[in-house]
Amino acid sequence: MRLRRIKNIDEKIKKYEGLIVFDFKDKKGKWHEEFKNNHPIYLEIGMGKGNFIIANAIKNPNINYIGCELSDSVIYKAASKVDNLDNLLMINCDALVLEEVFSQKEIDKIFLNFSDPWPKTRHAKRRLTSENFLKIYENILRDDGVIEMKTDNRHLFEYSIMKFNEAKWQFEEISLDLHSDKDDIIMTEYEEKFVKQGQIIYYMKVRKKG
Amino acid sequence: MRLRRIKNIDEKIKKYEGLIVFDFKDKKGKWHEEFKNNHPIYLEIGMGKGNFIIANAIKNPNINYIGCELSDSVIYKAASKVDNLDNLLMINCDALVLEEVFSQKEIDKIFLNFSDPWPKTRHAKRRLTSENFLKIYENILRDDGVIEMKTDNRHLFEYSIMKFNEAKWQFEEISLDLHSDKDDIIMTEYEEKFVKQGQIIYYMKVRKKG
Repeated sequence: MRLRRIKNIDEKIKKYEGLIVFDFKDKKGKWHEEFKNNHPIYLEIGMGKGNFIIANAIKNPNINYIGCELSDSVIYKAASKVDNLDNLLMINCDALVLEEVFSQKEIDKIFLNFSDPWPKTRHAKRRLTSENFLKIYENILRDDGVIEMKTDNRHLFEYSIMKFNEAKWQFEEISLDLHSDKDDIIMTEYEEKFVKQGQIIYYMKVRKKG
Repeated sequence: MRLRRIKNIDEKIKKYEGLIVFDFKDKKGKWHEEFKNNHPIYLEIGMGKGNFIIANAIKNPNINYIGCELSDSVIYKAASKVDNLDNLLMINCDALVLEEVFSQKEIDKIFLNFSDPWPKTRHAKRRLTSENFLKIYENILRDDGVIEMKTDNRHLFEYSIMKFNEAKWQFEEISLDLHSDKDDIIMTEYEEKFVKQGQIIYYMKVRKKG
């Protein structure tokens, strides 16, 4: 997500307190209390400017959504689009610390949308489907929980198939051309752009091993 | 492989006796004797008109190749292209009976090239990567043996990823655009045609579980 850093972002972002949860580590194991219900919790890692998760939250009021985004300028943009949604919260944190934010099995589903491909082999560990991240997801996801992944990046997708297989996740669904296979897809900002350009979008849904 | 049936094929095909092994079930467990060496044995299932396996056999004299093809008219075409190769044999049989042709672990590698996609769900069992076929391959392949698969058919490839994962094979390599990733590819007849048309070729190399 390329975005110029917003001036005085530390202050500006505070106006979204409530929607953006700043003391997110204190909420570990208590996210259902935070939402004040027991609905399932879906987490998007790398939410970007939020189009995908906001549209999902509007469409599915009985599901709780949490958008995780590393860049404060980007999460600010996302937050500014939200108009009074009880089932959506945002956290400004690195995916590496998610085990400090969620207790075991607290999450029902994870979305990985158009994650940074980190094309260089020496950066492979930073890819959101590398071994260490999969261990984190396995930990915070409920038994039988799923990850849905979309990307336009062929090499990231090939890599991810290998990594999920290696870690013994189960493939539920694979599409090597999502937009040929399905209609009514809730799109991210990137996805809108790529689809207009005629690029292929890859998709998979994988389930945590029993 | 569409090909008009050749007249009097039963008689004509006999002239290739030696290259085409007719009593293939009698060779079970004795294929190394048949080749008169202990080199690894690579099997192509659905060899078609043979371009791929013949080029491989010429290139790699220290590997034994067996081409399996269901259609007698097609195997006849393939055989007619071979000029004195000690390391290539052909069998005219259905992949379903391969356990009657090879003993356990007799095969070192299997190639599945542009197999019939059998697109209808009710025909899924006929796909060469369906569950029952994977069991056959697991049986005749040596421990640690691999399958290399190429196809232009997206849905067959998606299905195959799911099936290999389900049966706990290990992905060694995946390419969702083989000809962008590699040079010097030995092509099948179909592949030549598809590549000229600009079609994507999918590739994977999977290893039998330990």
